[in-house]
Amino acid sequence: MRREHVRDLLQRVADGSLEIGNALTALAFEPTESLAFATIDHQRALRQGFPEVIYGAGKTPDQICEIATRIAERGHGLLVTRLPADAVEPLAGRLPGIEINALGRTAHLPGREPAVQGKGTVAVVTAGTSDLPVAEEAAVTLAALGNCVSRVTDVGVAGIHRVLARREDLGNAAVVIVIAGMDGALPSVVGGLVSAPVIAVPTSVGYGAAFQGLAPLLTMLNSCAAGVTVVNIDNGFGAAVAASRITHA
Amino acid sequence: MRREHVRDLLQRVADGSLEIGNALTALAFEPTESLAFATIDHQRALRQGFPEVIYGAGKTPDQICEIATRIAERGHGLLVTRLPADAVEPLAGRLPGIEINALGRTAHLPGREPAVQGKGTVAVVTAGTSDLPVAEEAAVTLAALGNCVSRVTDVGVAGIHRVLARREDLGNAAVVIVIAGMDGALPSVVGGLVSAPVIAVPTSVGYGAAFQGLAPLLTMLNSCAAGVTVVNIDNGFGAAVAASRITHA
Amino acid sequence: MRREHVRDLLQRVADGSLEIGNALTALAFEPTESLAFATIDHQRALRQGFPEVIYGAGKTPDQICEIATRIAERGHGLLVTRLPADAVEPLAGRLPGIEINALGRTAHLPGREPAVQGKGTVAVVTAGTSDLPVAEEAAVTLAALGNCVSRVTDVGVAGIHRVLARREDLGNAAVVIVIAGMDGALPSVVGGLVSAPVIAVPTSVGYGAAFQGLAPLLTMLNSCAAGVTVVNIDNGFGAAVAASRITHA
Amino acid sequence: MRREHVRDLLQRVADGSLEIGNALTALAFEPTESLAFATIDHQRALRQGFPEVIYGAGKTPDQICEIATRIAERGHGLLVTRLPADAVEPLAGRLPGIEINALGRTAHLPGREPAVQGKGTVAVVTAGTSDLPVAEEAAVTLAALGNCVSRVTDVGVAGIHRVLARREDLGNAAVVIVIAGMDGALPSVVGGLVSAPVIAVPTSVGYGAAFQGLAPLLTMLNSCAAGVTVVNIDNGFGAAVAASRITHA
Amino acid sequence: MRREHVRDLLQRVADGSLEIGNALTALAFEPTESLAFATIDHQRALRQGFPEVIYGAGKTPDQICEIATRIAERGHGLLVTRLPADAVEPLAGRLPGIEINALGRTAHLPGREPAVQGKGTVAVVTAGTSDLPVAEEAAVTLAALGNCVSRVTDVGVAGIHRVLARREDLGNAAVVIVIAGMDGALPSVVGGLVSAPVIAVPTSVGYGAAFQGLAPLLTMLNSCAAGVTVVNIDNGFGAAVAASRITHA
Amino acid sequence: MRREHVRDLLQRVADGSLEIGNALTALAFEPTESLAFATIDHQRALRQGFPEVIYGAGKTPDQICEIATRIAERGHGLLVTRLPADAVEPLAGRLPGIEINALGRTAHLPGREPAVQGKGTVAVVTAGTSDLPVAEEAAVTLAALGNCVSRVTDVGVAGIHRVLARREDLGNAAVVIVIAGMDGALPSVVGGLVSAPVIAVPTSVGYGAAFQGLAPLLTMLNSCAAGVTVVNIDNGFGAAVAASRITHA
Amino acid sequence: MRREHVRDLLQRVADGSLEIGNALTALAFEPTESLAFATIDHQRALRQGFPEVIYGAGKTPDQICEIATRIAERGHGLLVTRLPADAVEPLAGRLPGIEINALGRTAHLPGREPAVQGKGTVAVVTAGTSDLPVAEEAAVTLAALGNCVSRVTDVGVAGIHRVLARREDLGNAAVVIVIAGMDGALPSVVGGLVSAPVIAVPTSVGYGAAFQGLAPLLTMLNSCAAGVTVVNIDNGFGAAVAASRITHA
Amino acid sequence: MRREHVRDLLQRVADGSLEIGNALTALAFEPTESLAFATIDHQRALRQGFPEVIYGAGKTPDQICEIATRIAERGHGLLVTRLPADAVEPLAGRLPGIEINALGRTAHLPGREPAVQGKGTVAVVTAGTSDLPVAEEAAVTLAALGNCVSRVTDVGVAGIHRVLARREDLGNAAVVIVIAGMDGALPSVVGGLVSAPVIAVPTSVGYGAAFQGLAPLLTMLNSCAAGVTVVNIDNGFGAAVAASRITHA
Repeated sequence: MRREHVRDLLQRVADGSLEIGNALTALAFEPTESLAFATIDHQRALRQGFPEVIYGAGKTPDQICEIATRIAERGHGLLVTRLPADAVEPLAGRLPGIEINALGRTAHLPGREPAVQGKGTVAVVTAGTSDLPVAEEAAVTLAALGNCVSRVTDVGVAGIHRVLARREDLGNAAVVIVIAGMDGALPSVVGGLVSAPVIAVPTSVGYGAAFQGLAPLLTMLNSCAAGVTVVNIDNGFGAAVAASRITHA
Repeated sequence: MRREHVRDLLQRVADGSLEIGNALTALAFEPTESLAFATIDHQRALRQGFPEVIYGAGKTPDQICEIATRIAERGHGLLVTRLPADAVEPLAGRLPGIEINALGRTAHLPGREPAVQGKGTVAVVTAGTSDLPVAEEAAVTLAALGNCVSRVTDVGVAGIHRVLARREDLGNAAVVIVIAGMDGALPSVVGGLVSAPVIAVPTSVGYGAAFQGLAPLLTMLNSCAAGVTVVNIDNGFGAAVAASRITHA
Repeated sequence: MRREHVRDLLQRVADGSLEIGNALTALAFEPTESLAFATIDHQRALRQGFPEVIYGAGKTPDQICEIATRIAERGHGLLVTRLPADAVEPLAGRLPGIEINALGRTAHLPGREPAVQGKGTVAVVTAGTSDLPVAEEAAVTLAALGNCVSRVTDVGVAGIHRVLARREDLGNAAVVIVIAGMDGALPSVVGGLVSAPVIAVPTSVGYGAAFQGLAPLLTMLNSCAAGVTVVNIDNGFGAAVAASRITHA
Repeated sequence: MRREHVRDLLQRVADGSLEIGNALTALAFEPTESLAFATIDHQRALRQGFPEVIYGAGKTPDQICEIATRIAERGHGLLVTRLPADAVEPLAGRLPGIEINALGRTAHLPGREPAVQGKGTVAVVTAGTSDLPVAEEAAVTLAALGNCVSRVTDVGVAGIHRVLARREDLGNAAVVIVIAGMDGALPSVVGGLVSAPVIAVPTSVGYGAAFQGLAPLLTMLNSCAAGVTVVNIDNGFGAAVAASRITHA
Repeated sequence: MRREHVRDLLQRVADGSLEIGNALTALAFEPTESLAFATIDHQRALRQGFPEVIYGAGKTPDQICEIATRIAERGHGLLVTRLPADAVEPLAGRLPGIEINALGRTAHLPGREPAVQGKGTVAVVTAGTSDLPVAEEAAVTLAALGNCVSRVTDVGVAGIHRVLARREDLGNAAVVIVIAGMDGALPSVVGGLVSAPVIAVPTSVGYGAAFQGLAPLLTMLNSCAAGVTVVNIDNGFGAAVAASRITHA
Repeated sequence: MRREHVRDLLQRVADGSLEIGNALTALAFEPTESLAFATIDHQRALRQGFPEVIYGAGKTPDQICEIATRIAERGHGLLVTRLPADAVEPLAGRLPGIEINALGRTAHLPGREPAVQGKGTVAVVTAGTSDLPVAEEAAVTLAALGNCVSRVTDVGVAGIHRVLARREDLGNAAVVIVIAGMDGALPSVVGGLVSAPVIAVPTSVGYGAAFQGLAPLLTMLNSCAAGVTVVNIDNGFGAAVAASRITHA
Repeated sequence: MRREHVRDLLQRVADGSLEIGNALTALAFEPTESLAFATIDHQRALRQGFPEVIYGAGKTPDQICEIATRIAERGHGLLVTRLPADAVEPLAGRLPGIEINALGRTAHLPGREPAVQGKGTVAVVTAGTSDLPVAEEAAVTLAALGNCVSRVTDVGVAGIHRVLARREDLGNAAVVIVIAGMDGALPSVVGGLVSAPVIAVPTSVGYGAAFQGLAPLLTMLNSCAAGVTVVNIDNGFGAAVAASRITHA
Repeated sequence: MRREHVRDLLQRVADGSLEIGNALTALAFEPTESLAFATIDHQRALRQGFPEVIYGAGKTPDQICEIATRIAERGHGLLVTRLPADAVEPLAGRLPGIEINALGRTAHLPGREPAVQGKGTVAVVTAGTSDLPVAEEAAVTLAALGNCVSRVTDVGVAGIHRVLARREDLGNAAVVIVIAGMDGALPSVVGGLVSAPVIAVPTSVGYGAAFQGLAPLLTMLNSCAAGVTVVNIDNGFGAAVAASRITHA
């Protein structure tokens, strides 16, 4: 539509019904016209079958259902993160094919177009069982974005043999997402074991001085393994998108 | 120049040497072409005689002198804030007419065009003598941007009669900038005395638990006088620009 | 009444029944007599039809209803902010004409005198849908204080074309209130697009490391766009009053 | 009893049944024997009719009732602070004469001996109505400890005339307790108005950047009025005891 | 002078040359006239021989000398705190009788009038030798304000017998100032040993996690001894003024 | 099993069916093979009858019951910490012999093998009654790990005679665990009274500025008694394991 | 050498001079033997011509020169980051071919083997000129690790047209490193413009409330553009290694 | 002496020259008399040849020399920590036999009595070379207190094979002190490898978000290896004393 507007404008310049000076002024005052039809990333995203994402926190079940239904009607895929518990049943009732992941608090409905597959496997590594909800959020998001996922679970550094035993799995991954609460030490060890990109996710798991994830967040930012990058506390979704940026490059 | 680029493009559409589809594509991929000649604010800034601003912190005397000279050669005014002590002499040597304010750590060279005058007077109010460097930075910036400035000095709330005695001065101001360290309580009192906009500036003055300005910053953000707004610690420059946005509306 | 007290005192000086020395002492010990009848701002506020404001947080429904009723009986307008959910029904029952805004958690009853209109429109801009409750609080407050309001919604910087598409709306505003959680980056972009005063409001929206609004608060205080000012976290009311100080100058 | 122990020991030294060397050793290894009967403060406290204090937070209604009953049976006075809501009824049922203060979350049962009266009046000053629960806790504690209390309510600095109007009341107090949330500015103003000791109490009242009382706490510690002292957030009890230490000196 | 102004005004009312209405208006618009001659605290301070105080931090030697000389010329006493090292010699040269305390970084020149003596002795207690500079600042200030001072030094709680050995000295004090860095635990012990007012001063002494005094500050605010009050980090001056408010009540 | 794998590999080297070079490569890629059968600590732990530990926070009753049952079936002992209230009944129903400690929120089922006894007694010292839940968690853990426990309760430093009266008990302990909230001062006093190892546990008990245990945590880290070590906030379990590392050395 | 150890052991198994059981035990107790020759990443790093890295902060010029010389003698490349100013001349004297970058505080000596080239170009984007030292550190590191680098400088969001004008450059990059201080808002905008991986680096540039980089760090962690990852404050080196992990995958 | 005082008192009770009641009173008012001769720990410390410790930070060279000389004259050993650089030469000149450790900033003069030897070896483990100064402080302190020390250096977890290669050394230690900056992850790994007590020391080494040691401090407090205890930032001395409490039990 917007694109039509500019096309019209150019058409009128071509047929002489609009002076160049006026066209120039019009364009100057509508810079986003040009931007609007140039958001290639979004179009590419759609072409690649990426789902639209609804951040469920702070939304009512009704709001989530309504937004989700409208997306589904267009045939697009959709992913709900931080799905509130009381929205699960209404959403599943409205969109029968939707896949609910209770642990990861996600809902995923694939679109008509399958997601373009990323290159390689993304390993999702967790230090302890309490980190699993964040891992699930990451894994569901990765799959929805067209990635193969492998799991390496409960390999915290206090029993260092556990992560060493999974070294081959880690070495085969194109990207490694490492999820840990408490001391957040696991990414430093993993970052030294593999040469692939490592994305660290702190979780809000732990005793008082973990300060809801601040402790592992700082640990990861200060990782002695060079080249480890970090996302927000409990943000499995963000880590998955970051990994998918790499596998789809 | 950039504007010329778009004009050329339109010219080629007008004379038929460029197809509309191709023009459309070109515009889509150069969204900032349109933006580049549309940054009216900047042009207006120049038309109004506003100086260009150099943030001196972390720059060498040589760098500052070089940048300043290049601006001055174009006949534009310039304002240096956070001027390092060892840059004063070189700068004054290079640009003889420049006005140095040692306390405020500023240098100001008016441009060929005088700054457009703002409406009304801006009052710069300080709680204690240690807040004066920040007040000077604000006052010099205000003057450079075309504002009348009045000073109300050393009226901290521990001697409440001091600020009450200056109530008339405060009431006459179009905007009031209130600068305070330590407890940062003055803006709350001033905000209750006047109906004009009040901009609060915390300073890094005080004993240990002031935490380099964190204490007055929090005080001001929590002001019980409704409608007080806050800028960064020691940021007299920012407060002056905010005030000037109001007086030049 | 208080004014009468001073008048009496002066009367007695005039008719010789009170010595000057004694009058002097009396005045010295009652400084607020003079202040009490000199609080022009308050009177002006009343003359201008400004409502009285009740901060509802931490008050019981009964307390809110009682205070509101007493104000309404005098014919004054009133605004309740942070209205607790369980106070909505009792309040609406007691004061039938009162306008409840569920999203903004406000209640507004206009006074007999209409509010004096401010100059120009205040734009209320939000980065995401989760910022809407704060925007509503600001919008209702602005209207109650006699301001025209325009809305620019869901224009977060991750899709920069969205805010650029609304550039004209922003450019037309006398004051721009920008509300954002998470990274709080929007005010920096808006501050560069407009020359009008920009008031930034951080919200407590986001993942763990947003620390209930601390992250966007710091972002906004450090805005690279000069002259952006900041209010407290989630304080749409404060931003509205600050804007209204500008439009009523 | 413990005192008896030492008396016995001395008796046995006196009658020769215990050697001096052995007595010396016994005393060396039981240093608190001597301390135990030397805790004059406690005895004086009892002599002065001070109540025993129960900190109710985190205790069950049963625990509170049991402790309170045991104290009451000895004829001692008792004061419960932070009384949980569900403990009010059981406690009032068990000890019919006990005075419940719902706002201050206290319960007070005077002892057989009246509290020794302190010298002068303690003024309890609040900035806003939300500070009243803390003020009540202070006032009840003060009364229980034998102090006269005067109230100065809702005199926050945003309307500076309010506190000035109560200047005489403030000037008459032996000690002034100033309670404020949000910007915590009131103690700085009061500290400049009176020469008596000023004890500041920050409250956890306010918008997000008050950080549950951290903001007014820092404000008060940085008060520009010399000689203002500070107690913990919401700690009306502590301020009252501090004041009572002064009035009972 | 200001007082003269009001007297004139009243005189003109008395002799009929000023109408009551006009006098009323004049007083209404000059509320601080009345305040100006009513700042009894200041006058009393002068009558009592209290010195004027110069906070030396951030002032040049020249500025300090100039201010000090002007005060001395009026015959007033003066106290400089946080005296910069390079200001010692110039100041001693300019005002020969001034007493320099190198450890406490103070300079004191008694006024013509001796300070009115406070009631009782103020004990200044330190946990370790590193706390002595703050203790000196407190002691010099106390003496300058007319107080008797006793010292209890190096009685940190890690050797609990040290403070217990000085229990009598502590018990005899009218006010106890307790100064401690590191764990800041001493005020809790002292607060349990004496019934007099206890003022705690945290110092910026200690290893990394003392965070420049934050650790002992929090310790003292959370003292389990009821009624301990706290001043700013390293603020020996503030503690002394607080104590003097008590001894001069 | 893993050990078998390496044995096979060596066997094949011995009988010539595997070349040394290939064996070298295989070992290089399976480093954890060697580690897997070398986790002596774990085996020793089992030999010593140590229980397996389940951290109950964030787990459902079902999950806890299932894990606990599987451990119990192997005849191992088990310890649940942070047992959620709604898991108590199901767990007690499933494993009849399990010992529930409601205050400490623990469940303990001894294994077939009794725990190897540690040398000496571990004293568990608390400052106030609110610290008891953490003390219980420590005491139950200590007993489960084979330690004798003595209790010293409610000996906070505000009544210093209380801890001095228990000096002998403290002096007899092999390790002293000191648990305190609020000012966290007790470990500094205890650390000066005994020469045994002292482990300090901050608790989340106290008024606002205790910041959920941050205040006592900092106090303890800054203890003026040399050689006091610290564990996480409310982490009675961690302190007990640390003590048990010492008694089992 | 270590590898030789295991080879010897296997040889002795092969020739029967070592029993399998004993070999098993030896391997069990020397798990790192196997690890030592299995650190493939390091070997690959060497094969790929990666330099060895010396973190210069806190090292003396002598130490740096000695370490650097020893590496250079083996023909390996080396990179010094955070090179102290007083180490520049000695290092350049000792290793004549070394390339010093004064702004980025780096020294680089390429090894005999050229670094294996990564795929694609890494864009290094800065918000302001004060971010350049960090950008230089990143750029030198990237080049040393075998990456093509493109620069996009001074495109802070306050002048949004600047970054939009460079959109094509950004779109062509395989990885984008975005460096910003103050509000740290740039990565959020860039993250919305490109689909490639975005690594954000906060810098310690800005006024007081930037808190040495804490403000932009939090901004970036909370980026509203999904999939932005973050490294430590001022850590250009870490961002470059993270980018190189991606381009060498 | 003090002991003599009590003996006298008892003597007078024994010979009838002092009544029991009066003796009782005397003891009540001199509780520390009894304590003074009961500080067994101190006496034992002296018997065991422990040195007296001087914390050098914030002391002048003169002060340090004077204190050290006085101790040395009594034949006691002494240990200076945090020895200022400018005190090294004067101290070495005054006490020729004293051993200076420049890296650890310590000076040690053994006493006439050799220190009683602790049981077993204390391992001092560091993650990186920047942690060595803290390690030296710990090692010198350990030796001065009579402990055998083994070193394990530069075994940070980013190259996990390094620490695994030293596993035997770690397993042989009676106590393990683990020193690390940046991510502080090493104690979690070591805590899982050994069953001995592990004492973690965070150092102030690292990029910006290490916040002068706060990051590794939090990491260590949240260690996922149960039973790791923590001391203050950079406090090698404290860790050594804690270890020595264990080896001397």
